[in-house]
Amino acid sequence: MSRVTTQNQISPFFSCTMELDDFPRASHGASPSVGQLLKHVGDVRKEATGDGGETPLHHNHRILDMSDESLEPRTLPFVLSFTNLTYNVKIRRKFSLSGMFTSQRDHLGAATLSDPVGGESLFTRNKTLLNDISGVAREGEVLAVLGASGSGKSTLIDALANRIAKGSLKGKVSLNGEVLESRLLKVISAYVMQDDLLFPMLTVEETLMFAAEFRLPLSLSKSKKRMRVQALIDQLGLRNAAQTIIGDEGHRGVSGGERRRVSIGIDIVHDPIILFLDEPTSGLDSTSAFMVVKVLQRIAQSGSIVVMSVHQPSYRILGLLDRLIFLSRGQTVFSGSPAQLPSYFAEFGRPIPDSENKTEFALDLIRELEGSPGGTQSLVDFNTSWQAMKHKTHHHDERHVVPLQEAISASISRGKLVSGAGATNTAVPGHASSMVPTFANPFWVEMAVLARRSMKNARRMPELFGIRLGAVMVTGFILATMFWNLDNTPKGVQERLGFIAFAMSTTFYTCADALPVFLQERYIFMRETAYNAYRRSSYVLSHSLVALPSLIFLSAGFSATTFWAVGLDGGLSGFLFYFLIILASFWAGSSFVTFLSGVVPHVMLGYTVVVAILAYFLLFSGFFINRDRIPAYWIWFHYMSLVKYPYEAVMQNEFQDPTKCFVRGVQIFDNTPLAAVPAALKVKLLDSMSETLGMRITRTTCLTTGSDILKSQGVTDLSKWSCLWITVAWGFLFRILFYFSLLIGSKNKRR
Amino acid sequence: MSRVTTQNQISPFFSCTMELDDFPRASHGASPSVGQLLKHVGDVRKEATGDGGETPLHHNHRILDMSDESLEPRTLPFVLSFTNLTYNVKIRRKFSLSGMFTSQRDHLGAATLSDPVGGESLFTRNKTLLNDISGVAREGEVLAVLGASGSGKSTLIDALANRIAKGSLKGKVSLNGEVLESRLLKVISAYVMQDDLLFPMLTVEETLMFAAEFRLPLSLSKSKKRMRVQALIDQLGLRNAAQTIIGDEGHRGVSGGERRRVSIGIDIVHDPIILFLDEPTSGLDSTSAFMVVKVLQRIAQSGSIVVMSVHQPSYRILGLLDRLIFLSRGQTVFSGSPAQLPSYFAEFGRPIPDSENKTEFALDLIRELEGSPGGTQSLVDFNTSWQAMKHKTHHHDERHVVPLQEAISASISRGKLVSGAGATNTAVPGHASSMVPTFANPFWVEMAVLARRSMKNARRMPELFGIRLGAVMVTGFILATMFWNLDNTPKGVQERLGFIAFAMSTTFYTCADALPVFLQERYIFMRETAYNAYRRSSYVLSHSLVALPSLIFLSAGFSATTFWAVGLDGGLSGFLFYFLIILASFWAGSSFVTFLSGVVPHVMLGYTVVVAILAYFLLFSGFFINRDRIPAYWIWFHYMSLVKYPYEAVMQNEFQDPTKCFVRGVQIFDNTPLAAVPAALKVKLLDSMSETLGMRITRTTCLTTGSDILKSQGVTDLSKWSCLWITVAWGFLFRILFYFSLLIGSKNKRR
Repeated sequence: MSRVTTQNQISPFFSCTMELDDFPRASHGASPSVGQLLKHVGDVRKEATGDGGETPLHHNHRILDMSDESLEPRTLPFVLSFTNLTYNVKIRRKFSLSGMFTSQRDHLGAATLSDPVGGESLFTRNKTLLNDISGVAREGEVLAVLGASGSGKSTLIDALANRIAKGSLKGKVSLNGEVLESRLLKVISAYVMQDDLLFPMLTVEETLMFAAEFRLPLSLSKSKKRMRVQALIDQLGLRNAAQTIIGDEGHRGVSGGERRRVSIGIDIVHDPIILFLDEPTSGLDSTSAFMVVKVLQRIAQSGSIVVMSVHQPSYRILGLLDRLIFLSRGQTVFSGSPAQLPSYFAEFGRPIPDSENKTEFALDLIRELEGSPGGTQSLVDFNTSWQAMKHKTHHHDERHVVPLQEAISASISRGKLVSGAGATNTAVPGHASSMVPTFANPFWVEMAVLARRSMKNARRMPELFGIRLGAVMVTGFILATMFWNLDNTPKGVQERLGFIAFAMSTTFYTCADALPVFLQERYIFMRETAYNAYRRSSYVLSHSLVALPSLIFLSAGFSATTFWAVGLDGGLSGFLFYFLIILASFWAGSSFVTFLSGVVPHVMLGYTVVVAILAYFLLFSGFFINRDRIPAYWIWFHYMSLVKYPYEAVMQNEFQDPTKCFVRGVQIFDNTPLAAVPAALKVKLLDSMSETLGMRITRTTCLTTGSDILKSQGVTDLSKWSCLWITVAWGFLFRILFYFSLLIGSKNKRR
Repeated sequence: MSRVTTQNQISPFFSCTMELDDFPRASHGASPSVGQLLKHVGDVRKEATGDGGETPLHHNHRILDMSDESLEPRTLPFVLSFTNLTYNVKIRRKFSLSGMFTSQRDHLGAATLSDPVGGESLFTRNKTLLNDISGVAREGEVLAVLGASGSGKSTLIDALANRIAKGSLKGKVSLNGEVLESRLLKVISAYVMQDDLLFPMLTVEETLMFAAEFRLPLSLSKSKKRMRVQALIDQLGLRNAAQTIIGDEGHRGVSGGERRRVSIGIDIVHDPIILFLDEPTSGLDSTSAFMVVKVLQRIAQSGSIVVMSVHQPSYRILGLLDRLIFLSRGQTVFSGSPAQLPSYFAEFGRPIPDSENKTEFALDLIRELEGSPGGTQSLVDFNTSWQAMKHKTHHHDERHVVPLQEAISASISRGKLVSGAGATNTAVPGHASSMVPTFANPFWVEMAVLARRSMKNARRMPELFGIRLGAVMVTGFILATMFWNLDNTPKGVQERLGFIAFAMSTTFYTCADALPVFLQERYIFMRETAYNAYRRSSYVLSHSLVALPSLIFLSAGFSATTFWAVGLDGGLSGFLFYFLIILASFWAGSSFVTFLSGVVPHVMLGYTVVVAILAYFLLFSGFFINRDRIPAYWIWFHYMSLVKYPYEAVMQNEFQDPTKCFVRGVQIFDNTPLAAVPAALKVKLLDSMSETLGMRITRTTCLTTGSDILKSQGVTDLSKWSCLWITVAWGFLFRILFYFSLLIGSKNKRR
C-alpha cells in the first residue's frame, strides 16, 4: 500500500511545493493566508498506511484543542528568521606524530581553515563552523539542512535552537522579528536529539504518558492528558505499537523507526511552536525514514515550524520537504525549495540529468567542488548572486509578520503549547516570555511522576535488583560461614575486627553495581531537563527516595545473614543498630556512586575510580593502621574515609558491653611468646604476677573488656550513634553534590 | 570529478550488464570465455577518482602475479552454486508479560513461522530462516543478496561461507560441482564482517602489511609482500590514506569508507577465490558506499567470486552489481540481473515506474506484500515459475565447468591465492584441499609478527601503560607514606601484616585495568583466526611474552617505592625476592585477567567478576583468618586463593631472619591488658615471671622472633620459594586456560 502512496505523491508534489515555496516572494507579494495554509494541509492528506512492519499513520492529530477555534482562519503565522550566523571555534594544534599524519588530511574536515585572525596562536587555530548563514523557516513548513557530514548541519540546528553559548555565535535569530530569549525559546520549542534515549522497559503509550505528565500542566485533567497521548499516538502512526515496550538488546521491542517516532512524540507532547531535529532519519531504512518525515510534515502542518538536518534524503522524502539549505564547510551553497534545484544548478552550468536523484546529484557536485582547488567558493558566490537576484525581482514583504506576543497568545488560544496554556490561557500584557511558565508542574507533582516512573522501571527489570541482592547475599553467606561462631579469645577478637572491616567494605563495593544503570539514566535525564520537562532538584529527591526500599531490603538480608552466624554481640538491640548502620552504609555508598555517575563520563572509568577510592577508604579506615598510628599528614584522609564511620560504629556495637570479657586469666598469654607454655605454668605465672601487681588475678579474672579493645584499636573519638549520623550525613552530602554535578554537567551548550 | 564518472557510467551500464548477465543462459549457449571476461574488465576502466574526501581509486591491481601468464586466456572459471538451502532454528517460547507484548508483533520477524513440525514443543518453535534457496555465483561477477532487515540476507551469506554448523543446514553448496570441504573453503575464501575490527593506532599501510605477513607465505620475500600491499592500496583506492592511522573516538583517522576498504583489504591480501561480505556498505554515505562496491567489482573482475548482502543499494551501486537475489522471510522472491527487474515486475503485474529507483520499488513492494494477508507467497510462486520458464527456453549449460582441482591450480599458477602459491606452486595430484596449506606461515613467524604488532600498538598508545603505571605508583606512594618506617614492636608487626596483604592485593587489582584492552583485541583475534591468519597458540604465546617487559617495569617501580620506605627486611637479597614475587603476582594477575577476557563477553561484567573474585581471594588469603582457623569446609578455597601465595612469600621474606627480634623484654605486655602499667612495674613483673619460669628475662631478652610470628599466623606449609613458583605456575595455568577459552569461544558458527 505504501507503494500506492508514493505514486500518488510524486506527481503532484513539485507543482504543490513550488507554489507553496514561491508565495512569500513571488507575485502574491504577501505572506501566506491561512486559507492557503489550510489548502496546503488538505493537499497532502494522501496517507502512507503501514504494512506489517511499520504501523499505519492516522490522521486524528490536533485532537486536544483547548478551544473550538481550530478551524477558524489563522492569521498570525510564525516566522523564524536567522541572519548572518557565524560561529568560530578554537582548536588546539597538535604537534604529535599522529597529528602530522592527520594534518595532511584536514581537507576532510568540517569547515575551511580560516586565515589567522585574532586569538589565533601557535597552539590554537580558528575553525569556522558556520560562515554567514541566513534564512527563514515558516510555520507549516519543513526546513531541511543538507550537507556532507561535517558540513555544519548540526551546528546550524544548534545555533537556531540556542544551544551555542551566547558570546560565541555571531548573527541574529529572531521569531516574528523579536530576538528570542533563551527561557522563552525553551518553552515554545523542542529539540529532538539524534539518539533515542528512552527507558527500554516502558511501553510506547507509557513513555508518552509520562512525557505528558511532565510536560502538560496539573490543571489539565488526567483524562485530557490521556486523550492528548492517544491523539499523539495516532498522529505518530504508533497505534499498533502502543502496547509494545521500547526494548533493547536483551528485550525485543518496537522497530527503529517507531522508536524514533516515540522520541519525537516525547518532545512534541506539549505541541511546541518550533521543532528542531538533528538527523531524525539517520540509521533508519528508507521506509521508516519516510514515515518519520511524513510525521514531521504533519506536525508542521498542524501549525509548527520544523527545522531538521538530514544526510541524504531519498527521492520520496525530498517530496515532503518545503525548503532546503545546502551547506558546505559552513557556507550556504543553495537555499530554496526542492523544485528550484534543477533551475539553480542549470544556471550554475551543471544541469541535473533527468534520471538522477536531485539531492544525490547536488551533494556529489558539492563534494566534487570541495575536492577541487578553488573549493566551493564559486558555488557560494553563485548562490549569493542568485539569492540577490531573486530578492530583487520578488521583494520579500515582511509587513504581514505579526508581533511575537500576539502570535503566541493566538497560538495558545488555538490549543498550541499545551504546557503553557493551562497556566495563563489569556494573553497577559508584557513580554512574550511572561505568558508561559518555565515548568509545567509544581515540584511535588514532578517528584511523584518521577518516582512512579522509576518504580515501574524497576518492576519491569527485576533482574537488576536481583543481581545486587545476589551479590550481597553470596558475600553474606561466605562471610557467615567463614567467620562462623567466632569465639571471644584474643584470636577471635582479631577475627572480629577483620570481619567488621570486610563486611563494611562489602556494602560499599556492592553499591558500585548500580553505576551502569545510573549512567544510562543520566542521558535520559539530560534530554528531559534540557527543555525543562522537570526540575533537577525533584529528580535528585525522587531518585533518593525510590532507592530507599531496595536498600532496606538489602540491609535486612545482609545483617540477618551475618549477625547471628558470626556471633556478634548485643542481642536484639545490637542487631537493630547493626541493621541501621548497614542501611546507612548502603545509603552513603549508593549516594557516592550516584554522585560519581553524575561526574564520570564513562562506565568503565567510573567503575575503576569507585573501586580504587573504596580501596583507599578501606586502607585508611583504621583497620589496617589504628587511628593513633596513622602518620599526621594522612590523618585528614582517615576522617574522609567513608568506611571509618560504619567500621567504628560496628566496633563499638560489638565491644560496648562492659561485663563481657575477651581476655580472662591465663588467656593473657595467648598473643604473647608465652602462649606455648603449659597451662599449669601459666597459672603459676599469673600468681607471681598477681603478687607483684598487688591484685588478685585468678583464671577467671577478666583482664580485657570490650572497652580495652576499643581503646587499643584507637576507636575512641566518636560514639556509635555519632558514627551512624555521620554516615547518613555523608549520604546527604553526596546527594547534594550530585545535584550540583547535574546543574553543571547538563548545560549542554557549545562554547 | 566523481560527477563525471557517474554520468559516464550510467548510460553504458545497462547494456553492458545485460549482456554480461545474459550470456550464460542466452543464445550463446556457453559459459563466458576469457576473452569476454577480459573485454568486460576493460569496459569498466572508467574510474571514480577521488575528491578531497575519499582518496581516488587506481587501477594497478594484480601487480603481484607469480607468473607472467596473467594476460593468457583464462579457460577455467569458478562457479559457486547452491541448491535448496534450508535452515531452521528452534526458538524458545516466552511466557512472560513482555513476551505477550511482543508475540502480537512477531510478523515483524525475520522469517515466517512454520507450522508445527517435528521437534516443535510447547516451549520451542521452529523458525525457518532460509527456505529452499538456490542460485549461482560466478567468477568475475558480484552477486548481491537484497532484502529488508531480517529477511535472511546475512543467514544466506553465512550458509554459503560455511558459517553454519553442518547438521543444521540442509541443501548443497558446491564450487565447480564439488562439495566444498570446510578446510579448503577457509583457505580459498574470505569473509568480511560488518564491523571494522582494526587496531586504531596502526596506519592503513601497516595494517595491510601485517595482514600480508600473516597471510602470505614465508617463501615470499618481504619486498614482494610490500609490493603486494602497495598494489592492494592502489586497488582499494587508499593511496592518499596509506600513511594515516585507522583512528578511533579519541584519535582522528581515516573516513568510514576508507576503514571499510581496509577491512576488505585485510581479507583479500592473499587474493582469495571467493569473497563473502556481510553488508559492506552499511553505515557509509552514498559516495563511500559506491567506492566500496566499485572496489568489490574490481576484485571480482580480477578473477574472484564476490557475494555480498546489501540493504538498499543506491542507483549508482545497482549499476555495479551483476546478479541479484531478493529475499523475503527466507524465501527467494527474485533472482536475476538488475536489467531483468523491470520485465520481471511488469510480468508480475506491478510495473516499475520509470522515475523510480528499481530496488527501492522492489523492496517496497515486497514489504507491502509481507503486510498483506497472503504474504509474499504469490511473488515466491511467480519467481519459481519465472525461473522455470527461463531455464526451459535457455537451457543452462554446465558442460564447460572445469573440475575444481584444475581450476584451483590454474588459478594459483596465475598468481591467485598468494598464500597457497608459495608452498605448492605446481598442481599436485590428489584432492583439491591438499594443494593449499592450512596456515601460510610456520609457528615462529606468526609469533614474531604478532609480537611486533603488539609492541607497535603499545608504543602508539603509551597512555594505556601510563595509566597502569600511574595506578601502581600512586598506590605505592600512598602505601609507602602510610606505612612509613614501621617499627618492630608488636603493633608494628600487625601493621606489617596489613601492609603485605594490601600490597599483594593491589598488584592483582591493577591488572584488571588491562581488561578492556584485552577484550577489544579479542574481537580482532576472532576475525583473524576465523580464516586461519595464524594459529591460536602463537597468539597466546606472543601475548604472554609481549606483556613481560611492562610487568617487569611495573614490579620494579612498585617494589622500589615501597620496600625501603616501609622498612621491609632482608637487605638487597630481600629486595630482590620482593621484586620477584611482585613480578610473579603481576604475571599471575594479568594471566588471570587475560583468561577472564577470553571467557567474559562484556567489559562491565568482566570487571565486576574480577573485583569480586579478587576480594574473595584476599578474604581467604590467610590474612583475615589464619590458615589454622579457617573452617574445614573452606580450606580448599584458601589453597585456590591467588593472593595466599604472594602473601605468604612476602611474610616469610620479612620474618625469616632468626636474629631479628619483634618482642623484647617488657614489650611482652604491649598487646595485653597490662600495656598501660607503668614501665617500672613491668620490669618487676618480668622479674617475677623469670623466677617462675626459671629463666632469666631481662628488658633486652628476645621473646618473639620472626619465625614465632610466622607460626602464629599459620604461615608454615610452604617455603617462600615454593610460594614464588606456585604463583608463577598459576600464571601459566591461566594462560593455558586462556588458550582453551579461545579454542572454544572462537568457533563462530551458527548452530
